Amino acid sequence: MKKKKGSVGIVETKYVELVKDKKEYIKLDCGKDFGPITVAYETYGNLNREKTNAVLVCHALSGTAHAAGYHGNIGNNVGWWDEAIGPGKAIDTDKYFVVCSNVLGGCAGTTGPSSINPQTGKPYGASFPVITIGDMVKVQKLLIDYLGIPKLLGVIGGSMGGMQALEWALRYPDSVCSSIVIAAPARLSPQSIAFDAVGRNAIIRDENWNKGDYYGKSVPSVGLSIARMIGHITYLSDEAMHRKFGRRLQSKNQLGFDFSKEFQVESYLDYQGNKFVERFDANTYLYVTKAMDYFDVAMSYGEGNLEKAMERIKSRMLILSFTSDWLFPPYQSWEMVSALLKLKKDVSYFNIETDCGHDAFLLEIEKEEEIISSFLDATFSNMEKSR
Amino acid sequence: MKKKKGSVGIVETKYVELVKDKKEYIKLDCGKDFGPITVAYETYGNLNREKTNAVLVCHALSGTAHAAGYHGNIGNNVGWWDEAIGPGKAIDTDKYFVVCSNVLGGCAGTTGPSSINPQTGKPYGASFPVITIGDMVKVQKLLIDYLGIPKLLGVIGGSMGGMQALEWALRYPDSVCSSIVIAAPARLSPQSIAFDAVGRNAIIRDENWNKGDYYGKSVPSVGLSIARMIGHITYLSDEAMHRKFGRRLQSKNQLGFDFSKEFQVESYLDYQGNKFVERFDANTYLYVTKAMDYFDVAMSYGEGNLEKAMERIKSRMLILSFTSDWLFPPYQSWEMVSALLKLKKDVSYFNIETDCGHDAFLLEIEKEEEIISSFLDATFSNMEKSR
Repeated sequence: MKKKKGSVGIVETKYVELVKDKKEYIKLDCGKDFGPITVAYETYGNLNREKTNAVLVCHALSGTAHAAGYHGNIGNNVGWWDEAIGPGKAIDTDKYFVVCSNVLGGCAGTTGPSSINPQTGKPYGASFPVITIGDMVKVQKLLIDYLGIPKLLGVIGGSMGGMQALEWALRYPDSVCSSIVIAAPARLSPQSIAFDAVGRNAIIRDENWNKGDYYGKSVPSVGLSIARMIGHITYLSDEAMHRKFGRRLQSKNQLGFDFSKEFQVESYLDYQGNKFVERFDANTYLYVTKAMDYFDVAMSYGEGNLEKAMERIKSRMLILSFTSDWLFPPYQSWEMVSALLKLKKDVSYFNIETDCGHDAFLLEIEKEEEIISSFLDATFSNMEKSR
Repeated sequence: MKKKKGSVGIVETKYVELVKDKKEYIKLDCGKDFGPITVAYETYGNLNREKTNAVLVCHALSGTAHAAGYHGNIGNNVGWWDEAIGPGKAIDTDKYFVVCSNVLGGCAGTTGPSSINPQTGKPYGASFPVITIGDMVKVQKLLIDYLGIPKLLGVIGGSMGGMQALEWALRYPDSVCSSIVIAAPARLSPQSIAFDAVGRNAIIRDENWNKGDYYGKSVPSVGLSIARMIGHITYLSDEAMHRKFGRRLQSKNQLGFDFSKEFQVESYLDYQGNKFVERFDANTYLYVTKAMDYFDVAMSYGEGNLEKAMERIKSRMLILSFTSDWLFPPYQSWEMVSALLKLKKDVSYFNIETDCGHDAFLLEIEKEEEIISSFLDATFSNMEKSR
């Protein structure tokens, strides 16, 4: 009998200064020392006595530490992956202690370009150092150490979160039992870099960007909303767009012969663009997309050779891709799987049939659920046996 | 033996006022009467005595009347489809009289939003009427009448030019013997509308756009260049981007950890965006993309039913698509072919293998050449026989 699904209920974001003011620093991939660093995080479920049941959830570009449950009251402000995290869900909080933190460079509580630089008393803006996915993971490692977790049962994420999950397996092979890489590549393709570059261009060339110094003034909302609109096209698929919008008009029954947003798809994008501006920082968009563009584990760990890079992996690997994802297409996931298979690593791969495009990692929970929960359960059993 | 290829040599753009000032108008699809209309056009080769050898070439979004040969001196300013038009080429100017004109709404000689409105003495700007692909074709028909051509041997075009070629076959079934529709759909997909919408959004929200009234002032160069960058991504393919750029850096051997355009693909897009601003009018971009978004021949001629729309076609049809074209993908061409086949119309279809994406219609001339020249020759022979 399948277990009934529940909610983690009302949760709170916690904040911890992991790298202390003026005393400690972390060495970033760019070579600079950087600190202080505050991290925003949430946890769901309970850490067991042996500290062997911790799962780190990594968020995508626009995510936050608030992955599950509600803020304030039941029903309010639901976490971004609530469908996948909770009692009886893909990541079962009755079994596992789940941690999610906002990434370094983010704008939802963790230190980023909108944070105050203690040396100047003003927001960092464009003086924030250019960071990498590796740097984000270093900060997550500090959080996991702080929480007293010697080794993660699993790291899981989709899109940019999947890049972090892969980075964990490579950077800290002894600190993670399994890594679940969903809809993410081992290195960004030139097409993805191109989309990111246009989005950044729109922000940087927005007059309000003002070299990154716009806090407390007018924000570069035009540039950020255009970047988000481009993003949303890449998160969907041609098929999904046919299904969701077709050529349907928004409110009129006939063409308006004007430049209003008359097609439903136009109106959708416009809404998504404007909504994003209210909750996201344009500088974070720059830094986080740049971190993704730089992501290339073959280069970072294998001198350009993916197989060589993967040699260091010790964790079990689960790779998921989606048939209609054209942002990070299945062939990119297969590149990873293929390298891992050649190395006889413990890898499972599923290419999930869907028309939802890249967004599928957030939408096709039902299809992911059994794969993820079985994989985590098996990893947990293996680990218990080998103790 | 294959004929040696040559050039049409030095050519000139001609201008003709087809709809006269304050006396004549054409009825646009929006319902408005509009005039005067000047058309910029070029011709190559000679019209035969029987006037049966005329081929109309229709240009894509950013094209002009200058399709072949040189302006000024040999070697200068080569026409946009020079590789396909000339003695011994796909469209052989030793056999055919070739006509190409700038579209209505354009910015290269034909009346468009940057033209002077004689009623105000100022450029139309946003007061220019919203036009359709059908309106462009109506103006081309006036030009063909003016040139004394009773029936075209062929109409040919790629991308938006292909939409015009299809529109000709539907709007003027008795005035065209054959239509060659390259890399074009019977109706724009929501994904294509989405990309167009983001481009228009970038222009309209550029402060310099000023409700379309920017002539003689600062032009909305940021918006237009962003629109063009988005366009260029859609004209290429993932494969072509891997081949052309990969993850190669522009000038440095290592990552710069800054926001410069360090990847080659970033630098390419930036260059394309800036170059476009020098030669293209932002308002024309708005009008022409809107005309494409509105393009839906099933709706215009078949009450939403493509097969019903195609019933009126009397010309031979040649449909070409390219395997890696994801802007106007092969399945869209196949929709047309399938409808034509069901109606037992005279249709040929080739899905050309290439990694060049949508740009293939301009790049894969060698693969298109024999198909196009054989089709035109056969059409010409048929017509001669039936006379």
